[in-house]
Amino acid sequence: MTKRNIYLEDVPLAEARAKLQRALIAAGRAGPLAGERVPLAQALARVTAEPLRARRSSPHFHCAAMDGYAVDAAATVSARETLALALRLDEDAFPVNTGDPLPEGCNAVIMIENVNQADERTLLIYAAVAPWQHVRLMGEDMVATETVLQVNHLLRPVDLGALAGCGHQNVAVRRRPRVVIIPTGSELVPFERAPGRGQLTEYNSLILSAQIREAGGDARVTEIIGDDVTRLRVALQDALSQKPDLILALSGSSAGAHDYTAAAVTDLGELHVHGVAVRPGHPVIIGMAADTPIIGVPGYPVSAALTGELFVLPLIRAWLGLPPSEPTTIEAVTTRKIASPIGDDDFVRVALAEIDGRIQATPLQRGAGVITSLVRADGLAHIPRFHEGVDRGAALSVSLYHPLSAIRRTLMIMGSHDPMLDLLATYLRLRSTAARIVSVNVGSIGGLVALRRGEAHLAGCHLFDPESASYNISYLERYLRDEPVALVTFAQREQGLILPAGNPLGIAGIADLRRARYVNRQRGAGTRVLFDYLLGQHDLAPDDIVGYEREEATHLAVAAAVADGIGDCGMGLRGAAEALGLDFIGLMWERFDLAIPRRHLDTEGVQALLETLNDADFKRELGAQSGYRSDETGQRVV
Amino acid sequence: MTKRNIYLEDVPLAEARAKLQRALIAAGRAGPLAGERVPLAQALARVTAEPLRARRSSPHFHCAAMDGYAVDAAATVSARETLALALRLDEDAFPVNTGDPLPEGCNAVIMIENVNQADERTLLIYAAVAPWQHVRLMGEDMVATETVLQVNHLLRPVDLGALAGCGHQNVAVRRRPRVVIIPTGSELVPFERAPGRGQLTEYNSLILSAQIREAGGDARVTEIIGDDVTRLRVALQDALSQKPDLILALSGSSAGAHDYTAAAVTDLGELHVHGVAVRPGHPVIIGMAADTPIIGVPGYPVSAALTGELFVLPLIRAWLGLPPSEPTTIEAVTTRKIASPIGDDDFVRVALAEIDGRIQATPLQRGAGVITSLVRADGLAHIPRFHEGVDRGAALSVSLYHPLSAIRRTLMIMGSHDPMLDLLATYLRLRSTAARIVSVNVGSIGGLVALRRGEAHLAGCHLFDPESASYNISYLERYLRDEPVALVTFAQREQGLILPAGNPLGIAGIADLRRARYVNRQRGAGTRVLFDYLLGQHDLAPDDIVGYEREEATHLAVAAAVADGIGDCGMGLRGAAEALGLDFIGLMWERFDLAIPRRHLDTEGVQALLETLNDADFKRELGAQSGYRSDETGQRVV
Repeated sequence: MTKRNIYLEDVPLAEARAKLQRALIAAGRAGPLAGERVPLAQALARVTAEPLRARRSSPHFHCAAMDGYAVDAAATVSARETLALALRLDEDAFPVNTGDPLPEGCNAVIMIENVNQADERTLLIYAAVAPWQHVRLMGEDMVATETVLQVNHLLRPVDLGALAGCGHQNVAVRRRPRVVIIPTGSELVPFERAPGRGQLTEYNSLILSAQIREAGGDARVTEIIGDDVTRLRVALQDALSQKPDLILALSGSSAGAHDYTAAAVTDLGELHVHGVAVRPGHPVIIGMAADTPIIGVPGYPVSAALTGELFVLPLIRAWLGLPPSEPTTIEAVTTRKIASPIGDDDFVRVALAEIDGRIQATPLQRGAGVITSLVRADGLAHIPRFHEGVDRGAALSVSLYHPLSAIRRTLMIMGSHDPMLDLLATYLRLRSTAARIVSVNVGSIGGLVALRRGEAHLAGCHLFDPESASYNISYLERYLRDEPVALVTFAQREQGLILPAGNPLGIAGIADLRRARYVNRQRGAGTRVLFDYLLGQHDLAPDDIVGYEREEATHLAVAAAVADGIGDCGMGLRGAAEALGLDFIGLMWERFDLAIPRRHLDTEGVQALLETLNDADFKRELGAQSGYRSDETGQRVV
Repeated sequence: MTKRNIYLEDVPLAEARAKLQRALIAAGRAGPLAGERVPLAQALARVTAEPLRARRSSPHFHCAAMDGYAVDAAATVSARETLALALRLDEDAFPVNTGDPLPEGCNAVIMIENVNQADERTLLIYAAVAPWQHVRLMGEDMVATETVLQVNHLLRPVDLGALAGCGHQNVAVRRRPRVVIIPTGSELVPFERAPGRGQLTEYNSLILSAQIREAGGDARVTEIIGDDVTRLRVALQDALSQKPDLILALSGSSAGAHDYTAAAVTDLGELHVHGVAVRPGHPVIIGMAADTPIIGVPGYPVSAALTGELFVLPLIRAWLGLPPSEPTTIEAVTTRKIASPIGDDDFVRVALAEIDGRIQATPLQRGAGVITSLVRADGLAHIPRFHEGVDRGAALSVSLYHPLSAIRRTLMIMGSHDPMLDLLATYLRLRSTAARIVSVNVGSIGGLVALRRGEAHLAGCHLFDPESASYNISYLERYLRDEPVALVTFAQREQGLILPAGNPLGIAGIADLRRARYVNRQRGAGTRVLFDYLLGQHDLAPDDIVGYEREEATHLAVAAAVADGIGDCGMGLRGAAEALGLDFIGLMWERFDLAIPRRHLDTEGVQALLETLNDADFKRELGAQSGYRSDETGQRVV
């Protein structure tokens, strides 16, 4: 067994960045990179490496500013409104279109509207013209030698036009920063290959290289290096020999792997930082070897992506001569208490929506291994060091991943998450740009509570009430007494028992659950309510069920737990069982509704959603899903 | 002479767009394009053509969530704080790093911190562990079949990672819209070639193709087609045979050229719009041929670029399945009255800066031929149809070309524009990100008035006062009596007479100007003040000077007018004369100062500017310019 290093340093973020900056300055690597010359047609989104001056004036001769006739102004002085002057065509007056050069001897243009053609060879004019009237003078746009673009300027389409217009065919732009990315970790396989058991897909190199390319750099990814300090050292030496601007060593997710990086960097150069007080992203490594910065990037994908944003991208921009990127930052109100380690800069992925005029932030899953939390995030909240977190309802500074206008169009659906809400979101996206759906899974009752608190526009629920033998209505009365709420049916769904393929225990119904390990849903979930009701129907108590206390948050999670032998049975949707190739015993059909406070009902977004619910194609595709019926989809219940 | 069509239609912008949309729908070309499959490594910034579901769960097996030892939870039940339980290494307990799969028979992980190693083969633990403790369960991030990304989603770096993580190696993305661009106009030459007299550089194709590429489309530019309806028709047929999504016919700047496009489109298909009520950009053409949209783009570069933004880019985005782009829009206060044609949607390029807490917009040159007005613009103000313009101080809706944070860092310098202010801007840009300089030329006195009105942070001035025989100070007293102002020297500059190369009229000084055509500067310019003073010294009156009433706004414009024979002589800087290879007779050295209201003096931006003024390298390079001395540069006058 390798020696295992448990503890990392806790260098504050600002100090870690300052150490990196000092090391870069010492190595003479802190400033913008040198320029290279590229043709204008390839210069879009590159950064100028020098100020650019006009090489010739534009226009570079006097030209007509109007369609009409070019003349010598002196020859027109006798023209009067009452005494037309005759001009011989092509001798005294020459037809010109806008942009044409003035013919020799001409210094003014008469607009075509102010001329009468007497015959084929003769024009009549009724007023004298001043010299240079309706003439675009040489240099009107740019005069030779004048500065047209500054240094360190990101080239846009119009900039390329202006450079071409004043005599440039190519332009000196900052060389693209070159980054070599070395993925390490014996457990990793390239994402192009299917991983075996115990193997993890290596995709952090894909994220980091895309981040670098998007920022204007070049990234080259080496093969994956196993957990072996010698091989890693060789790989680093190999990378250094290519004289890159930066090397990233991507660790596998294990702490062991970080140690290899730290050890190899120490062997080759100097280790400046080993562990930064940020969450996620703690085990960041910063070192220098052969005057080249080496950053060790942690293995969990959320940590890796944030390390890219916090450490790598600012470097790329500095080398390109650009100021640090400044994402739009807004103030939002958090719908949950967020606990935060006091010593860390904490970055929390949040879903955002504007409800009742306030932008509300709902924290997403915190695990650094959950890349979907970053994919689904609308923004990143920063809870600075020395803050222990924030209470529900407190203000939060959030930098946006989507334009504010998109956030404003967001319909926040909390509550029970039906997988077919994604189908609805697809149809809505294809049919309308009025709204985008963001859905956060908090269970049926959680959704109604969120509506009461004004944290969501809609709530998905499937809550069975044994007393009235009906769905949802009595719960609205209980949880949303003071709020007029509309209830619209989303679908009828088949609930039942999810069983391992082949049903090895021969379970036939609820009564058989005494002899199985059960996988339960969380308190407040509609399926949990239903299960408790069914237990009662069969004279069973929670204590009779092994695993009753083990909770999963979604139908698919229950199915996954059954598929992997964590339990022998769970309750959930037919679709979830079939998705993982499991057996299913149908127990009943239930109604899944969307609850919508009436004050949101007439908004453009909710109207677009309701139209999509009633879209014939959508209903057909929904009804064709295994375990779904859509006959009542879109109907108003109350 | 060809038949000349003078008048165009005046279709309102919204109606023109609606006509285009109806034509696209009729041709079945309005919706997003089909998908094509690309490897993930090439999918950055492409748009998904279908919703993407997890092909396998991630992680796809249970794995350690901590570094430690994997165990069977059932085997640990007897462990107590007071009664250590011994576990045999590699038999009861297996070392695992974060991310490692659980070995066969294990269902929990004990953190490394909670273990004591008794000897090489034995571990001691002091507490039982629950099943699945510190285990990352299969599907924690994504469960097979769950929707990971929606259709019509612009792929970001983290999205690529998530897709790779759930089993995708490639992804169906919207095909790039294909655009063929046909530049037309007999007067045009490709920008790669130097234009002769009467030839104009064709660079609109560079702007349009860059706009299209930036938005995610593909653009191919054909050779330039002369003004010949037959050749243009052939070129269009050629383009149509390539089955593009869109054809752009770029007109030369002449109205004649537009007619050729309209005629050729009518020959091949249907002309829907010929002239749109927008400024700039009026002569836009919209047609359809062989179910393919053809847009005729006006020839003036500002019109061409705006036609790209208003008509072409929304099409590209719609074909990619993206909503129309939404630039950040702010409210600004205009520092000038803007007159606007009542029937047009008017788009005005503005420079922006935040002064005294308000964002102020200063309109730039309006001419559609002045591409630098678009290059220098910080934003685009929209004055809608049915508005006659706005008064000074009125609110203006401006969509931003730069981030608001950059606008907030802007130092607005109005007044006299010295070309070396661009050198200062270069040094400032290389030395600091605290400020960016935007400079608007309104003449020395105009600058002082702008300071009084709070429209600028600094003013450049070189105003000679004969009474005190000094520069600027007495003018501050006159124009900024109530405002405490600091005056900092920018440079000493050599003013004199700018003469044609070889000085054909043999002019030796002011006295000789009786026999020359003079090119004057505008009222309020420091050089005009100086010239008037010198005239008086030589007992000359304005009436004695031919051309006194002909005004140019900059030193370089005066030099250009002399170079091109518009006048025989002008007054200005030595540098301007030398830039265009003209003769120069020095008359005197003058002081050019920057006036800075003291309330701006301590801001970060002004401090950065003052530091740069005193930078030794900057002063050396400034002093090395012909006609400049920098000994007093950066010194405080008052």
